Amino acid sequence: MPKIVDHDERRREVIEALWRVIATSGIERVSTRSVAAESGWSRGVVDYYFDSMDELVLAGLTAAQEVDLEARRESAERPGAEALRTMLMQSMPLDDARRLRAKVWLSYLGRAVSDPAIGKEFARCQEERSRVWAAVIERMVAAAESPPPLDAQTEAAHIMSFELAVNVYEMLNPGRVTPDAMMRHLDQFIDQLTARTTTAV
Amino acid sequence: MPKIVDHDERRREVIEALWRVIATSGIERVSTRSVAAESGWSRGVVDYYFDSMDELVLAGLTAAQEVDLEARRESAERPGAEALRTMLMQSMPLDDARRLRAKVWLSYLGRAVSDPAIGKEFARCQEERSRVWAAVIERMVAAAESPPPLDAQTEAAHIMSFELAVNVYEMLNPGRVTPDAMMRHLDQFIDQLTARTTTAV
Repeated sequence: MPKIVDHDERRREVIEALWRVIATSGIERVSTRSVAAESGWSRGVVDYYFDSMDELVLAGLTAAQEVDLEARRESAERPGAEALRTMLMQSMPLDDARRLRAKVWLSYLGRAVSDPAIGKEFARCQEERSRVWAAVIERMVAAAESPPPLDAQTEAAHIMSFELAVNVYEMLNPGRVTPDAMMRHLDQFIDQLTARTTTAV
Repeated sequence: MPKIVDHDERRREVIEALWRVIATSGIERVSTRSVAAESGWSRGVVDYYFDSMDELVLAGLTAAQEVDLEARRESAERPGAEALRTMLMQSMPLDDARRLRAKVWLSYLGRAVSDPAIGKEFARCQEERSRVWAAVIERMVAAAESPPPLDAQTEAAHIMSFELAVNVYEMLNPGRVTPDAMMRHLDQFIDQLTARTTTAV
């Protein structure tokens, strides 16, 4: 009886190998050879799933976004401020898996500067994330946990700039801020967000 | 009489060509050939000023930081909140020169993920910027333009995450926000910063 190949699983292993190559060696070092070596599969397997390196690199960004949204989805059903807290924890560099994700994300951000396909997909991902945060903010306002924001979109942008900055700092200064201090920083950010008085424009 | 070569000027032209290659073609496309072609000088001239591509790429980051600090230095002597506003304007993507600088900066950020020399220099630049912002905050507090911040360092980080986010948004969505809207966004940010009530930790 022929062995049944789990294509989703194998494709995922190739993508995860791609992420490790990006985080460790740099996105400019991505090649069929480097990703195949990292994945433990042959170059033929990598080529089977991805027609070109451009396709693989782009798929790696889309998959990173999916992992991120999936990690947050579990928290989305909690009450507003608690959802915000547990969802933000998913994008804080609190463990190796999240630090790897942040490095991959920042590598794609750098590549987006000069690669229109990556830039377009990155912008799409950011808009999708922004909608997720705006929905959480709206639920917090509905539950009277937060004063009505000027604009949920603006608050969403504020949350995204917070998570970006935290991850940039950790990437540039690995280990300087302890996970405990990061959590205090997160709680302070949420306190300010929920206590924010609205200002007239 | 032999022509006198202005080495600082020529070195600077090579660095500016490097920035354009990074912003347009990507940091991974930097080579003696591409930078020489962009600069209008020969490959020999590029090699004369920089022993290796690594040295050139690193020098490009240090020089970008210097341009940035220099642009802000002119504003530093103004009164507190006005200094903050004019200095922040220097890092907003309001014209081609500043958009180019932002693209170069984000490219280096991506490269910092996997290149320890770039990462170290980027972290040094960020600390230097952070000190500049903390000094402005302290002057604003001294002039009673702002309530005493919990920690000038934290407020400096807040300013840096704002400028990072604005530039990321513009890079991903070029032209979507008009310069006028960016200035309103900036003024709103400064209003919030100066009005912020201190919260207990």
